[in-house]
Amino acid sequence: MTTQPRDHLLVWLRDAYAMEGQAIELLERQIERLEHYPQVRAKLEEHLTQTRGQQAALEQTFNLLGSDPSAPKTGVMKAAANIQGMLHAFASDEVMKHALASYAFEQFEAACYQTLVTAAEQAGEREVASTCSTILREEQAMASWLWENLPQLTQQYLQRSATGADAKR
Amino acid sequence: MTTQPRDHLLVWLRDAYAMEGQAIELLERQIERLEHYPQVRAKLEEHLTQTRGQQAALEQTFNLLGSDPSAPKTGVMKAAANIQGMLHAFASDEVMKHALASYAFEQFEAACYQTLVTAAEQAGEREVASTCSTILREEQAMASWLWENLPQLTQQYLQRSATGADAKR
Repeated sequence: MTTQPRDHLLVWLRDAYAMEGQAIELLERQIERLEHYPQVRAKLEEHLTQTRGQQAALEQTFNLLGSDPSAPKTGVMKAAANIQGMLHAFASDEVMKHALASYAFEQFEAACYQTLVTAAEQAGEREVASTCSTILREEQAMASWLWENLPQLTQQYLQRSATGADAKR
Repeated sequence: MTTQPRDHLLVWLRDAYAMEGQAIELLERQIERLEHYPQVRAKLEEHLTQTRGQQAALEQTFNLLGSDPSAPKTGVMKAAANIQGMLHAFASDEVMKHALASYAFEQFEAACYQTLVTAAEQAGEREVASTCSTILREEQAMASWLWENLPQLTQQYLQRSATGADAKR
């Protein structure tokens, strides 16, 4: 049995579409819970808008391929839900757990788009490759922001915690 | 109620110790399943040895702090187990799912050590910070390798799949 790059491309694009749906849920939940870390909240709000744009861009790729995102692929849905399981609303260091999980999630997304770019190129779908490449750079930019702000966030968390201020979220 | 950086440091080090235990399990499982991608298998074997060394290095930090890694922290255990849930032994593109999950896991580990470096510095524990900084660089190097090899792995997978060769693992 053979499977052509274009078939894999479609399956993986559906995975990505479902993943962005999960990303939106994760971002919305985190934004609504954050209280004492306004710089993180602002960045998550910015990325939420960006993520909605990514979903719309993915919808265009289905049009290009004469297909639709309707069939939900359970694989990545589960993966995303599992990462969602890393969110620890009951942990005393919730903000830190969220930051670590968000960073891993953005990197997971970036890697998914990396495979999509390759699959689109192999399938000769240049425009799809270009869209996936753009989203890839957005996910990487978000991951970089989270990484660069992690030491400062950790310091803020430790300082609030050491002075008895509410540090959790 | 206040909590000092040193207390957070100990909790997070126990998290990291448990996480490395999970990492060893993940790596062992992936290595035993990989069949047709020898370059990935070789790298995972190399990183398995490195990971065992990281666990030993973490044990030393507990000695430095006059503590021990005994109390298992369920938080990261769960997170790691959830990432483990991303492994799709039954997926037709298992090798790709593993590659994406491994990459996200390495980045998750790197971010954990990033917070540990900050916590150790805030607690005035320079030697612990130095150990965590070394492990951080190792996790980043592994993540970079996975990232850089992802396009080639995707191509190999798509080619095997298009010619009807066993591509799954």
